[in-house]
Amino acid sequence: MAEHTVLFDGADAPVKVPTGTLLADAARLAGVEISQPCGGQGRCGRCAVKVTSGSVRRRSSLRLSPDDVALGYALACQTVVEGNVAVEVPPQERIERHLTMDRVAAEVRVPAGYSYAQHQSIQRYSVRLRPPSMDDQTDDWSRLQTALRQASGRSDFSVSLPLLRRLGEVLRAGDWQATAVLDISSWAFCQDCPARLVDLRPGLAEEDEPLWGVAVDIGTTTVSVWLVDLVSGAVQAQTAEYNRQIARGEDVISRIIYAGKSGGDAELQGLVVGTINDLIAAACKRVRIEPRDIVKATVAGNSTMIHLLLGIPAASIRLAPFVTAINEVPAFRGADIGLAIHPEGTVDCLPGVASYVGADISAGVLSSGMDDDAQLTLFLDVGTNGETVLGSSEWLVTCACSAGPAFEGAGVQHGMRATSGAIEEVWVNGATFEPSYRVIGHVKPRGLCGSGLISLLAELFLTGVIDKGGNIHLDLPTPRVRSGEHGPEYVVAWADETERGEDIVFTHVDIDNLLRAKAAIYAGFTVLADGVGVPLEAVERVLIGGSFGKYINVEKAVQIGLLPDMPWERFQFLGNTSVLGAYRALLDRDARSRVQDIASRMTYIELSADNRFYEAFTSALFLPHTDESRFPSVMAGMA
Amino acid sequence: MAEHTVLFDGADAPVKVPTGTLLADAARLAGVEISQPCGGQGRCGRCAVKVTSGSVRRRSSLRLSPDDVALGYALACQTVVEGNVAVEVPPQERIERHLTMDRVAAEVRVPAGYSYAQHQSIQRYSVRLRPPSMDDQTDDWSRLQTALRQASGRSDFSVSLPLLRRLGEVLRAGDWQATAVLDISSWAFCQDCPARLVDLRPGLAEEDEPLWGVAVDIGTTTVSVWLVDLVSGAVQAQTAEYNRQIARGEDVISRIIYAGKSGGDAELQGLVVGTINDLIAAACKRVRIEPRDIVKATVAGNSTMIHLLLGIPAASIRLAPFVTAINEVPAFRGADIGLAIHPEGTVDCLPGVASYVGADISAGVLSSGMDDDAQLTLFLDVGTNGETVLGSSEWLVTCACSAGPAFEGAGVQHGMRATSGAIEEVWVNGATFEPSYRVIGHVKPRGLCGSGLISLLAELFLTGVIDKGGNIHLDLPTPRVRSGEHGPEYVVAWADETERGEDIVFTHVDIDNLLRAKAAIYAGFTVLADGVGVPLEAVERVLIGGSFGKYINVEKAVQIGLLPDMPWERFQFLGNTSVLGAYRALLDRDARSRVQDIASRMTYIELSADNRFYEAFTSALFLPHTDESRFPSVMAGMA
Repeated sequence: MAEHTVLFDGADAPVKVPTGTLLADAARLAGVEISQPCGGQGRCGRCAVKVTSGSVRRRSSLRLSPDDVALGYALACQTVVEGNVAVEVPPQERIERHLTMDRVAAEVRVPAGYSYAQHQSIQRYSVRLRPPSMDDQTDDWSRLQTALRQASGRSDFSVSLPLLRRLGEVLRAGDWQATAVLDISSWAFCQDCPARLVDLRPGLAEEDEPLWGVAVDIGTTTVSVWLVDLVSGAVQAQTAEYNRQIARGEDVISRIIYAGKSGGDAELQGLVVGTINDLIAAACKRVRIEPRDIVKATVAGNSTMIHLLLGIPAASIRLAPFVTAINEVPAFRGADIGLAIHPEGTVDCLPGVASYVGADISAGVLSSGMDDDAQLTLFLDVGTNGETVLGSSEWLVTCACSAGPAFEGAGVQHGMRATSGAIEEVWVNGATFEPSYRVIGHVKPRGLCGSGLISLLAELFLTGVIDKGGNIHLDLPTPRVRSGEHGPEYVVAWADETERGEDIVFTHVDIDNLLRAKAAIYAGFTVLADGVGVPLEAVERVLIGGSFGKYINVEKAVQIGLLPDMPWERFQFLGNTSVLGAYRALLDRDARSRVQDIASRMTYIELSADNRFYEAFTSALFLPHTDESRFPSVMAGMA
Repeated sequence: MAEHTVLFDGADAPVKVPTGTLLADAARLAGVEISQPCGGQGRCGRCAVKVTSGSVRRRSSLRLSPDDVALGYALACQTVVEGNVAVEVPPQERIERHLTMDRVAAEVRVPAGYSYAQHQSIQRYSVRLRPPSMDDQTDDWSRLQTALRQASGRSDFSVSLPLLRRLGEVLRAGDWQATAVLDISSWAFCQDCPARLVDLRPGLAEEDEPLWGVAVDIGTTTVSVWLVDLVSGAVQAQTAEYNRQIARGEDVISRIIYAGKSGGDAELQGLVVGTINDLIAAACKRVRIEPRDIVKATVAGNSTMIHLLLGIPAASIRLAPFVTAINEVPAFRGADIGLAIHPEGTVDCLPGVASYVGADISAGVLSSGMDDDAQLTLFLDVGTNGETVLGSSEWLVTCACSAGPAFEGAGVQHGMRATSGAIEEVWVNGATFEPSYRVIGHVKPRGLCGSGLISLLAELFLTGVIDKGGNIHLDLPTPRVRSGEHGPEYVVAWADETERGEDIVFTHVDIDNLLRAKAAIYAGFTVLADGVGVPLEAVERVLIGGSFGKYINVEKAVQIGLLPDMPWERFQFLGNTSVLGAYRALLDRDARSRVQDIASRMTYIELSADNRFYEAFTSALFLPHTDESRFPSVMAGMA
């Protein structure tokens, strides 16, 4: 058998190994540490290395994208040597970042062909006015309008009282040279509608001087703000933090109930506005501008979040027949809502479709591009509510199902949000049933977040710790399984490893909750596909959006039957598609019209009134599914 | 000589008198008291009686309109008997009311042909909505819009955030029947502009149920509010009181200076808004509605008053080149300004022309109808500023001159505003030089208001107490003329007749101030006429507007050279033309467009930059004028 040299970049010298040797084994020979939390089963992707030269054969590339493979990435536990090779071992953090962040960063590129003058609904005009004299006593506002007519070619302009109050001072301070910021968004649809004066500043502006906007995504859990230079289109700062409304309820339903109490509406409005304002302030600090310099905010979020932002009662969202007060929100001004941008700055809330398919989904579809693609695409936003869109450039159908808060870590004994101390990924050794795990923030674990729970459920199923009904096998030869206070449970971490000094366990009740959550989501998109007569296998792409989707391990999600069993290449993580869609709509009037078009094109299917949904849900309450033929790869892996 | 019987309605029996006997003398014979304050000189009009049958000859009908004469009114001191006659002696109050109030009351008739559906910019639609169901989960706002589209035939509607917040509750409270109030003023000029939702109320409204609006005139001195049912067009209540800004300056210039101080803008804004709100509250109380029921306010006032109402700095009005911040004010909402009408109620400030020709004049011209009449008309608004408009349906020119506050009673030793205790009319006996006077409120006199001052100046001139230069003849055989602390003076009331127990005098300095005031106004319209090459005699009508104009005694104003010397019939008092114009514009979209048209048609002539004005002013500083040929009737009366 031929021998080859393998040179690891961290090693002193190459090692010699025969053809067919696993890279993982070669590394051990070379004394190079490669983490293999799943025990070398090719499931965790943590042993990814980069083959910089030479020939290898990949038995499996799960968790790697075609791009990754093209760049030379390979799983050390699944890749064998076939010639002399050189291998780079990325630091653990770099792999994690690569897997979770790189794709998101790539999405923040300025859209190709973006032209401020052509696409932006906020336009700036620097004008020189003829000063008034005894021969020309025209009033200030008419004088400015005349100059704006010449500069913009439009005839009519609207102005607020606060701006009128500053008008004379600004014109004189700039010695009759001034820069007007106009919102021309009405121009697209109304020839005679006035353009709105948003700001007037003394003096002239440089052509390429930035003009500031923000894209905002209000998630039930996390709020994200992107600070954007509307002239160049570039994202100049990104900030995110938990939605402070969390203190008044973890999910939308509890927030709606809270908002219905006396003063609750105003309190929740204040909390989310406070969250956004602090994020804006932090972003502005980085770029050294004032929040007041921001003249436009484009906002996405689910329907409840948008109602609560605007202080509009959301009660009807929660009760049958589940209607919103408003889906297509007109433009307001910063001052109307209390946003700490320019008081006259436009606040544009993107349109939603229904009570449980909101602007976050319209924005998500926009940023996914599925509405403009002939491929049949399934778009999923997995969270407390699983929103699903199926379709293509031809048609779009959508539904939402209440998955419950299990994926957010709630309703689970040791569940928690994806914050420091959360176990976000787990691997279970098939022989010893011993787990290993990764904790957010590299601290002692405090609990399990959504991705950790999915990961744990899949591992326990694949290693036979639980059966397809979710029942824990208490007769296994390991102290990890036992009867606890709440019935059978699996010990993920012993007390001495944990922050609180108590065992972190995963109980039968937790498993039931997760099964219901995943069954709801799976049932959602199967009913959607059935409803339009499209077999699930015909889906050419599965796009996973939402900030939670960013952290899901696809193969584990497939293994528990949350996602459909399809080749890896068809899955694509899009990160926070909501904020990305808001960013696109913020920049480009055409994109903004497209979101409108998407919202009106999406046919909403109400699942709560659909018996097929209940049947599909019941069938999906097993691991991975009652109908095993739907999950051939999972069943093959178990055989 | 033939004898005739004269029967007075208050007398026991007729008296017999020869042909040519004055009615005044016949009355004395019959024992009927007829007041003759001017001593029977035919100047005061106080001896007006009504000849109900029989033949008389009027030597003079000064102070009576052709309508009055047609009704039988005659001056007892100027009318001689030519046959058997019957005479009614109206109570004194009725004469006064007739002379000052009747014409005003007549102006408040609903304009002929007014049709709410056709003319009103506020329209009400009662709609029945299909309730939402699991089969129709349309959002509330779309559901309402669909119904409004069907009801109104328009496609687009705008809505404020506060209304959106109440939307769901209102629709459900009315069990999906609701009444929407829309501002459709944009429909006239913009096909695609949205109609604005002003209010939404649960349930259906009756066709003829009132819909409330107010017409507001903000005078520098007096604020007037008319509460109007927009459906019937009827004025249901009128209230007026002093502008509380008076405490911060009597005239516009001192108010602008005050507004320029720190916080002055906001304070003056608060004062006038407070004045209006109290007037609105008082009017609403009479009709038993809430101020919140008012959905539209149309506001007229001079440019400074409009700026101060809106809190817009007015400094540039005062300083060369005298420009306003804004002449054509866009519509705002009650809440923007702090008006206590419906917070979404439209506030429509009528357009002005220049710093000193404001919306009060545009509104005045509208209500005068001169812009739609072929007759050459001179429109005068006499007050602190004398605004003049000259023209016809063909053309309109306008100017303003600063008369100073003398006509408002300021800058005069015993001057005061036209309030209780003010001497408003004076007659001086040509033989004894003794005055008699009428006091507002039938109390002891405290001073002289503008009309009293004009009256006094005319009487003193006609009776020879002063010469044409305004100098007092101290050598007359009466204790009424004397040298006082401030030079020569005339005693109008002795200390024991007055409220304060001190003589009320009219000094040489007062006379000079009045001469400057009247000269400015006279010079204004003569320069205007000269400027367009029209002789003053060609003027077919002189319309006197403004709340002050209502109380001016025309013949006395002619005698001092304030008004041009023309036949009585050409003069017409229009009362408060500003509030009347606001009322018309409030009711009728076409009238509103016409005000706009008037404001843009009026060519403004700036007098402060015009040498001709200074010359005309100097010539007019005499009684009645340097050029006596301009005042033939006055000179004839003196001969």
